[in-house]
Amino acid sequence: MINKCGNIQTFLGCDADYNSADLVIFGAPYDGTTTNKPGARFGPAAMRADSWGLESYSPYCERDLEDFAIYDAGDLDLPMGDSNPVLERIEAAITDIAKDGKIPLMLGGEHLVTLGAIRALHRVHPDLHIIHFDAHADLRDEYIGNKLSHSTVIRHCWDLLGDNKIFQFGIRSGERAEFDWAKNHTVLRKFDLAGLDDILGNIIGRPIYFTLDLDVLDSGIFWGTGTPEAGGISFAELLAGIGKFAGQNLVGADIVELAPNLDISGQSTATACKILRELILTITKER
Amino acid sequence: MINKCGNIQTFLGCDADYNSADLVIFGAPYDGTTTNKPGARFGPAAMRADSWGLESYSPYCERDLEDFAIYDAGDLDLPMGDSNPVLERIEAAITDIAKDGKIPLMLGGEHLVTLGAIRALHRVHPDLHIIHFDAHADLRDEYIGNKLSHSTVIRHCWDLLGDNKIFQFGIRSGERAEFDWAKNHTVLRKFDLAGLDDILGNIIGRPIYFTLDLDVLDSGIFWGTGTPEAGGISFAELLAGIGKFAGQNLVGADIVELAPNLDISGQSTATACKILRELILTITKER
Amino acid sequence: MINKCGNIQTFLGCDADYNSADLVIFGAPYDGTTTNKPGARFGPAAMRADSWGLESYSPYCERDLEDFAIYDAGDLDLPMGDSNPVLERIEAAITDIAKDGKIPLMLGGEHLVTLGAIRALHRVHPDLHIIHFDAHADLRDEYIGNKLSHSTVIRHCWDLLGDNKIFQFGIRSGERAEFDWAKNHTVLRKFDLAGLDDILGNIIGRPIYFTLDLDVLDSGIFWGTGTPEAGGISFAELLAGIGKFAGQNLVGADIVELAPNLDISGQSTATACKILRELILTITKER
Amino acid sequence: MINKCGNIQTFLGCDADYNSADLVIFGAPYDGTTTNKPGARFGPAAMRADSWGLESYSPYCERDLEDFAIYDAGDLDLPMGDSNPVLERIEAAITDIAKDGKIPLMLGGEHLVTLGAIRALHRVHPDLHIIHFDAHADLRDEYIGNKLSHSTVIRHCWDLLGDNKIFQFGIRSGERAEFDWAKNHTVLRKFDLAGLDDILGNIIGRPIYFTLDLDVLDSGIFWGTGTPEAGGISFAELLAGIGKFAGQNLVGADIVELAPNLDISGQSTATACKILRELILTITKER
Amino acid sequence: MINKCGNIQTFLGCDADYNSADLVIFGAPYDGTTTNKPGARFGPAAMRADSWGLESYSPYCERDLEDFAIYDAGDLDLPMGDSNPVLERIEAAITDIAKDGKIPLMLGGEHLVTLGAIRALHRVHPDLHIIHFDAHADLRDEYIGNKLSHSTVIRHCWDLLGDNKIFQFGIRSGERAEFDWAKNHTVLRKFDLAGLDDILGNIIGRPIYFTLDLDVLDSGIFWGTGTPEAGGISFAELLAGIGKFAGQNLVGADIVELAPNLDISGQSTATACKILRELILTITKER
Amino acid sequence: MINKCGNIQTFLGCDADYNSADLVIFGAPYDGTTTNKPGARFGPAAMRADSWGLESYSPYCERDLEDFAIYDAGDLDLPMGDSNPVLERIEAAITDIAKDGKIPLMLGGEHLVTLGAIRALHRVHPDLHIIHFDAHADLRDEYIGNKLSHSTVIRHCWDLLGDNKIFQFGIRSGERAEFDWAKNHTVLRKFDLAGLDDILGNIIGRPIYFTLDLDVLDSGIFWGTGTPEAGGISFAELLAGIGKFAGQNLVGADIVELAPNLDISGQSTATACKILRELILTITKER
Repeated sequence: MINKCGNIQTFLGCDADYNSADLVIFGAPYDGTTTNKPGARFGPAAMRADSWGLESYSPYCERDLEDFAIYDAGDLDLPMGDSNPVLERIEAAITDIAKDGKIPLMLGGEHLVTLGAIRALHRVHPDLHIIHFDAHADLRDEYIGNKLSHSTVIRHCWDLLGDNKIFQFGIRSGERAEFDWAKNHTVLRKFDLAGLDDILGNIIGRPIYFTLDLDVLDSGIFWGTGTPEAGGISFAELLAGIGKFAGQNLVGADIVELAPNLDISGQSTATACKILRELILTITKER
Repeated sequence: MINKCGNIQTFLGCDADYNSADLVIFGAPYDGTTTNKPGARFGPAAMRADSWGLESYSPYCERDLEDFAIYDAGDLDLPMGDSNPVLERIEAAITDIAKDGKIPLMLGGEHLVTLGAIRALHRVHPDLHIIHFDAHADLRDEYIGNKLSHSTVIRHCWDLLGDNKIFQFGIRSGERAEFDWAKNHTVLRKFDLAGLDDILGNIIGRPIYFTLDLDVLDSGIFWGTGTPEAGGISFAELLAGIGKFAGQNLVGADIVELAPNLDISGQSTATACKILRELILTITKER
Repeated sequence: MINKCGNIQTFLGCDADYNSADLVIFGAPYDGTTTNKPGARFGPAAMRADSWGLESYSPYCERDLEDFAIYDAGDLDLPMGDSNPVLERIEAAITDIAKDGKIPLMLGGEHLVTLGAIRALHRVHPDLHIIHFDAHADLRDEYIGNKLSHSTVIRHCWDLLGDNKIFQFGIRSGERAEFDWAKNHTVLRKFDLAGLDDILGNIIGRPIYFTLDLDVLDSGIFWGTGTPEAGGISFAELLAGIGKFAGQNLVGADIVELAPNLDISGQSTATACKILRELILTITKER
Repeated sequence: MINKCGNIQTFLGCDADYNSADLVIFGAPYDGTTTNKPGARFGPAAMRADSWGLESYSPYCERDLEDFAIYDAGDLDLPMGDSNPVLERIEAAITDIAKDGKIPLMLGGEHLVTLGAIRALHRVHPDLHIIHFDAHADLRDEYIGNKLSHSTVIRHCWDLLGDNKIFQFGIRSGERAEFDWAKNHTVLRKFDLAGLDDILGNIIGRPIYFTLDLDVLDSGIFWGTGTPEAGGISFAELLAGIGKFAGQNLVGADIVELAPNLDISGQSTATACKILRELILTITKER
Repeated sequence: MINKCGNIQTFLGCDADYNSADLVIFGAPYDGTTTNKPGARFGPAAMRADSWGLESYSPYCERDLEDFAIYDAGDLDLPMGDSNPVLERIEAAITDIAKDGKIPLMLGGEHLVTLGAIRALHRVHPDLHIIHFDAHADLRDEYIGNKLSHSTVIRHCWDLLGDNKIFQFGIRSGERAEFDWAKNHTVLRKFDLAGLDDILGNIIGRPIYFTLDLDVLDSGIFWGTGTPEAGGISFAELLAGIGKFAGQNLVGADIVELAPNLDISGQSTATACKILRELILTITKER
Repeated sequence: MINKCGNIQTFLGCDADYNSADLVIFGAPYDGTTTNKPGARFGPAAMRADSWGLESYSPYCERDLEDFAIYDAGDLDLPMGDSNPVLERIEAAITDIAKDGKIPLMLGGEHLVTLGAIRALHRVHPDLHIIHFDAHADLRDEYIGNKLSHSTVIRHCWDLLGDNKIFQFGIRSGERAEFDWAKNHTVLRKFDLAGLDDILGNIIGRPIYFTLDLDVLDSGIFWGTGTPEAGGISFAELLAGIGKFAGQNLVGADIVELAPNLDISGQSTATACKILRELILTITKER
């Protein structure tokens, strides 16, 4: 009657054991470089807890989380205050998962965590490409003297990947210098996801990392985030964008910048959970 | 100077006396089976209080609540913790109103309250049809062992009405089994209200009960509800949908699942009030 | 089964009809001069709604609201933006109640509303005394050019009553000039209620108005108020203070400055309700 | 190392000195006539503080606040409880700015503050026109006995300007009488901004005051306001509308009715800041 | 690097395996009969999550959770809307734990869950006594027709245990009839914990169940609860009261009525965690 | 009429120019190592804004902020994510102020900021002593691998000052190892301020730095902080403790760990402001 085997907590339907799983979810609860409103550290735990209000079945793609082998490893134990050991721990975790032939799906935390993932996966896949959905360009070289920051993360991914490997969508905030720099180094689409089809068509088969900063959504839909931005894409546009990854060679992904404390209604968290469900159902293979 | 006749509180403009009223509003402040976030019990009182920030005139249909005879009976006195007496009290109240030749309009509370209304009105109108706007299918047979639940309510309305009497719109959440079951027993439209015109055309003159779960709205518009769902319809789509009931034989209606405590800005409550105004102005006859 | 007589809303147990009542409660939902955080306008309605979580029986004084004849007149209809008509309407209402031989108990609203009551009752009782519990001295002559303000209200009561009629307790905030002025014109006790016994003993039989600004309570107990102040009295001290009015000639009273929107937990509102219950049970006579 | 020159706080990028500035921003933190939910008094300070999360560069119009000379004068010191001195102070401030040949841009506060601006600018520009974006008609003659109110403000601007000078857009709330009155005295467009192009074409070169009540936005986008209204325009529609003022003879403007306390996520404030940036970039001339 | 053994979540320091544990914690996340503000269902999960901000070491009793064998079984899976199966599941779980020779410590949920525990433990310990800390007497026989309710729970424990077995402390809310009934059937101490020493001295060695309704605390200390009550005991008084159980034959305990959603600061949850730590350290034996 | 000299924002009454000031206030808005709930970064700005609801006059010590020369330098511009440059900037600012013969009073931010101040002042005053009020011992050597952390700050102050220079009061949370370590290296008083008199008597004339972590207050009084702790001191006890510094050789001070976002009522911020006023009035000399 009483559970005697330990209180295992996972995102809804992600209860496979590690060895049998194709996809490994874990949380990176770090927001130490957030300069606006903090709270992304609480994102992964909030999604896990709230997921029990979600259905495992998607009426969009007509697939069910219950039909796939997904493992939720819980959260990494990350320090606050110095980003270097944080990125090292993330890199080690992703390396571990990739080495075991599984796809890592990281739940942020702030956007800097993506750099740890790219460091790991770029070693495994030297031809790595990034598809980046975000309101912010994140292309500064440094921010108030810090090289490691949520607002520099894509720039330092570019340090590793180089030109023409990074495709940015939905961008509607940044310094003029970032937009100028992007012209020569990334493909940057302002405001929406137009052109995603063509780009995915061009890189089909190449290893892709998908980083989804949830603030790409309009702030009227998703305000549980540190720097909400009006003028973003709709939920339907995001679902459609995610759907386009079906059949692609996705070698890793993340969903970042949910700060559940900033939307006490829980609506943003519920929306993030649904997006995660759709992303999982797009990238898992049937058992 | 001081009011000496009792502090009567009604929804804005619903201050007719009972006998002269065509339409009778009352609250069913029950949320005892809510499994996600509770608070729908506070819905009717919040709507009444907030309605004083609303105008009685609608620039949409160019009619005014002041021109109609509507009575607001306040809230039923409902216990918590056992759904059976709750449904009995609702059934009795609706029976009473219907017997007096008036149209009942119930303010939830959670969605289970609809079952009490259907029990009452199905006896009066054996050919009763239901138009159901919702994010959730509500077609489970039971939920954690409970037959009476917000997530089973439409299924148990079907127990009374049978096949081809229930028309569901906006549905975007449920178990796979619910969607499968619906194929043979109800008409279920996913995501939006498309097809409502045709259906209303086919059942013109038949007795219709309209149950409006406010979470049919997109969670970015309406998050003061226990299980908000992204991907829903817009306010304009909902108003248009409500407008189509003009000229129909509406024998009862409800608006359920406003949980005002979950949107402390009050925006969701204000939106619910405006929807109620439009629904009233659609179904009342001119004095 | 359905209530057909109007949805009468009162504070718990205050459901006598006007004529039979000894005590008349009404709300003065005005906070137009509040300079810090507004919201006291919502006080009376919040107390009425929340009172249903209160018990009518007091284990402190072992009396029950059900045993007394109290009438709740609801809220006055007050404009915002000009204090003169507000005070006129309050004065008229209090005059009306006093003329009918009943004791008025006003629920604020901000503290300025007290001036309307004093204008009315001072005409009836030229020897009127005020017992004033508050964190703030409220003795400025004007505030940013305004004579009528929550922070001038006791000063302008003094304009009517004169020296040695006003007794202030719990005061812990004000300009130096206010404390200096008080030395010659009122009796002002800083920080707590010490000396209340003696003062009440000295004025026994004289007509007393009791104005209770709830921010006299420590802000750690009561933070649902526009200008919360640490260092205040405890709930037990306040109850003891209220109890001392038993047997006094109380000709009117008010409870002001609950701003329920500033304590979304509802704790401050619940505390205000309990204080109101104890105040009513102190001042009512047995039926 | 420590700043020894005073802690000057401005809206992002509005740090010119007064004399060199073309545009002068100031706050009018008054909400004394607000009848629904107060808090617009906190608007200007919240925008200033939150603006540091905004970028000075706009990817919409590809201009940067840093390239223009804008002065932020801080907030006027306004009393609460009597609107007359409030309007006088606003009128004086605007007169001052206009006299110095600069464009005033006022941050409300509630909508009544606009009347102070119109009184000042109508004297300077007898042919003044008003473009008014709002959910509410604001055309009552009085409200609960008050001539000066957020819900009468446009009516009393008309007292000064007369017929055919006021153009209202996005209106979706008001008494029937207001909509009727508008037929003969203003141009009122319900629900959206359709027709703005034509109107601006017709009055090109004439002195225009633009008053933007932020509740013209849909309440699902912007709920940090006292009377949020569903069914409003989108952020993109608003940006497009603002863009149409480029090249017009704008002699003053305001942005009113942000009540930041009503959206504790800060999303509404962030949106208001972005709108202000776009408005500034539309009306400033290059240095 | 990545955890491959499942994401086990426990209250801080309660990570023993079931077999080696002396004390078994579990959650009973039910609040289906709550009539005032719901949310106690969220209590156990909130305590588990928040406990990571707590230290395992107590400077009060100078003991450390790390030194004891405590197992946290997670939450029972409980339905909403019918209390009977809820109590059955709790009874079964407690029976299970007691049969294994361990002490059950249940985290509510609302107070009704205690009845399930008493049903189980009364069978094991026919001479069971209850020490009850609470603001509310909970001695009604029924509430709006419901026998099973948070406000009847102690009365129905009495049905099982009989007179002179139940000792109530801190009670400051109830109907007059409850206080009257208590005179003949329980020992009821109003307002505080005075006399606890004597009572515990009298029943030393007898099997004791300790039920702690956290609203016994003053509402100024603990407002994250459905029916907060001013005038309660302090944190220090509660700790002292808990300390008196050292050396007693405690056969079970619960901590109920934390509703974390009602205190969004998290302070009430943190306080509840600290109380749980102190209670555990009082009742565990050294390894 | 319009302010043409820049919008200077200071804490109430701290509007002296730098050169004439005896006391220099500045903010250190950093919370990058906070491991529990972030938000202390918002502390200084919130105190400045809220101080306008405070009176400059203290009825406790009967002195007035207006009578002293205090300069508020605003906030330092601090990066997030790496604590080293943060501490360097703080050290430089404090060094600057001390060099100019003024007393620095720093507003945190989290507690780590104190280390920057001690680094600066220890160079100036090699015999520096620290009086430390806090709920937490802050004596860990490292935390999750970080030497620089809010929970190690006093330990690393000790690295500079050595044994018998640090006096800790109110401590009620820490690892067992911290309490053990303190026995040989600091004077640590658990729970309250007892003994402060004697200690201050012993070190009279020595240079003292006073660091006040506001969570030393009971969490029922002060919950706007990242790790609130029940069982703390009262506001009156804190005021009395602060008063004891009169006549001491205070060479610097800080008030840290107000996280205003965690108490949306604003009560904690108001309390912090009042404490700051009392601290200023204790340490300033008359002009």
